[in-house]
Amino acid sequence: MIKNKTSTSEKVSSIGERALISCLTEIFKPAPSGKEGPAFQEVIAGAGSDDCAVLDLEGEECLVATTDMLHRTTDFPEEMTPWQMGWMSAAVNLSDIAAMGARPIGLLMAIGMPATTEIAFVEALAKGMKACAEFCETSVIGGDIDTHDELTITGTALGKAKKTRVLSRSGAKPGDLVCVSGYTGSAGAALEALLGKIEASEKLLKSLLEPVPRTKEAQKLAASGAVTSMMDTSDGLAMSLHELAKASKVGFRIKEEALPIEEEVIAFAASPDKLLNLALYTGGDFELLFTVSPEHLTKVQDICKLSIIGKTTAKEEGILLERADGGTARIEQKGYQQLKAEGNRKLKKIHSYKIP
Amino acid sequence: MIKNKTSTSEKVSSIGERALISCLTEIFKPAPSGKEGPAFQEVIAGAGSDDCAVLDLEGEECLVATTDMLHRTTDFPEEMTPWQMGWMSAAVNLSDIAAMGARPIGLLMAIGMPATTEIAFVEALAKGMKACAEFCETSVIGGDIDTHDELTITGTALGKAKKTRVLSRSGAKPGDLVCVSGYTGSAGAALEALLGKIEASEKLLKSLLEPVPRTKEAQKLAASGAVTSMMDTSDGLAMSLHELAKASKVGFRIKEEALPIEEEVIAFAASPDKLLNLALYTGGDFELLFTVSPEHLTKVQDICKLSIIGKTTAKEEGILLERADGGTARIEQKGYQQLKAEGNRKLKKIHSYKIP
Repeated sequence: MIKNKTSTSEKVSSIGERALISCLTEIFKPAPSGKEGPAFQEVIAGAGSDDCAVLDLEGEECLVATTDMLHRTTDFPEEMTPWQMGWMSAAVNLSDIAAMGARPIGLLMAIGMPATTEIAFVEALAKGMKACAEFCETSVIGGDIDTHDELTITGTALGKAKKTRVLSRSGAKPGDLVCVSGYTGSAGAALEALLGKIEASEKLLKSLLEPVPRTKEAQKLAASGAVTSMMDTSDGLAMSLHELAKASKVGFRIKEEALPIEEEVIAFAASPDKLLNLALYTGGDFELLFTVSPEHLTKVQDICKLSIIGKTTAKEEGILLERADGGTARIEQKGYQQLKAEGNRKLKKIHSYKIP
Repeated sequence: MIKNKTSTSEKVSSIGERALISCLTEIFKPAPSGKEGPAFQEVIAGAGSDDCAVLDLEGEECLVATTDMLHRTTDFPEEMTPWQMGWMSAAVNLSDIAAMGARPIGLLMAIGMPATTEIAFVEALAKGMKACAEFCETSVIGGDIDTHDELTITGTALGKAKKTRVLSRSGAKPGDLVCVSGYTGSAGAALEALLGKIEASEKLLKSLLEPVPRTKEAQKLAASGAVTSMMDTSDGLAMSLHELAKASKVGFRIKEEALPIEEEVIAFAASPDKLLNLALYTGGDFELLFTVSPEHLTKVQDICKLSIIGKTTAKEEGILLERADGGTARIEQKGYQQLKAEGNRKLKKIHSYKIP
């Protein structure tokens, strides 16, 4: 008997996150002949398409919204303080607002926690959330609390962007330069250091434990008019390149030598292959990956620490890496994928995908 | 030694949900001398004040937003189907949008589920969410999925309302009539029937398992201009009366005989005291509790099944019940409170409070 590939008695663990997201997206999308009430007309981009859903507003702006659920076991390294857990819970959502080039306007934080949690822990958690919100020039405007066996935090971030300036994953054109803010692989190296009990600088550890959402830089990048597509790198650079390529229907040619990697990470990696693995295939860096048309490069060069890591190519060319030794390799679509978790859950993700 | 009442080594279970919400609200509110950036100026009502947070928008409308975290053990009766769990997860949030008199414009649904969950379960869950969203003339616009030991769903609902028409909990004036839509105590009776394995009609069970958010009625009530304050009754009528009284700085005088109770619930209750307990102190009815100035009553009378259950009085008079036997009793501030959970978590809540 041939097993039906899409049998509904299959477990979510066997189909993987992306397949499940497609399945949900299919269910949630309004029927083609469907309702056209005012609520549906407002949805510019809904389930399945980008870092945030986009809703129409009166006037020049649109509303962007995103949500992320984090759990203590799988999302917060043991070494993380409650303050850092709060910061992180806000940061993952604010980074998605940044990815759209939007200005954050508020956070909702739902917290499920064991009844034995100390008040001091909750206070530190809330202060971390507040600090991250304020860093991004917004505030926690609401939420929900209840009891739960495991600390679980679901944040929702709202933002606004000019309709003509909101940045999506689609929009990259062959010839566009591929840019990334900050460094890549830092959070991945920090996580390896923590898990392997290897010494690392406080600065490196902070890149994992207190990631900085690039909301300010993102708004300037959007305002420049020079950026053709954008997303964040929280699931790893390789994953983000694949997502951007898929949405924009393009390929990328990335130069290994151009990847911005911190000195400490270079020293930390035992071999060039190990280093490349950190730079491409580990998540947790909340940087911006974006494409810029070459003639407008000067408009963005001073906005943030920016590295041009390659060029946009035709879709058929795929996503390639020009190795330092002159060879060429494919950049694989791997990094963190949820739902593939083994029986025993363990720390393995920094950030989960969205339905949009 | 005198124990410090606010010691931070205390556990959240010992202070109760309301005290913890106050503590978080205090942390989240911007400092009085604080930032006045554009993001803060947009917050009309933030953490701690109402069913939803309210944000300013350009034009005539404002944005309302709310979030709710639900868990399989504590929020979904065993008898609930996955479709109903999906419906419920959307409904709790849409009911909060209704409470503001707003029009829902989108839902974000974050789902954490065991890796062993069957695809068919997730599909049914999603279809339930979609059905509830469509009933309320909106759609699921995004979300997040990841693995978690216990099924946990955090929904976020967004809505829009005219700035001049958005309804809050404050606004009731002495002399205003107190009204409630639909019936009270139905969901509570259904839960008792389920827990006690007592037979109940499908209709009664549905009032618990598929509660109907009153978004359509709420928008009409808001548009009438006759309603002075509103909230939903999901935490029980008594709790809602206390919340409304506190926010509006008023008292209420409620008539036992005017409480709208379904025939089946009257038959179900073994005694008048038991019936009163169901009507006042059990949650899960997603009805609207609102106040109307008497001269405008005709404007709302045909909007929904509406019962006038009493009158708004001065704050000093408290919240009283005129008993059927002619006596008067205090309506206590009790119903469901989160975080007071015993060591063993069990089904005990329908809906949790918000930080706003």
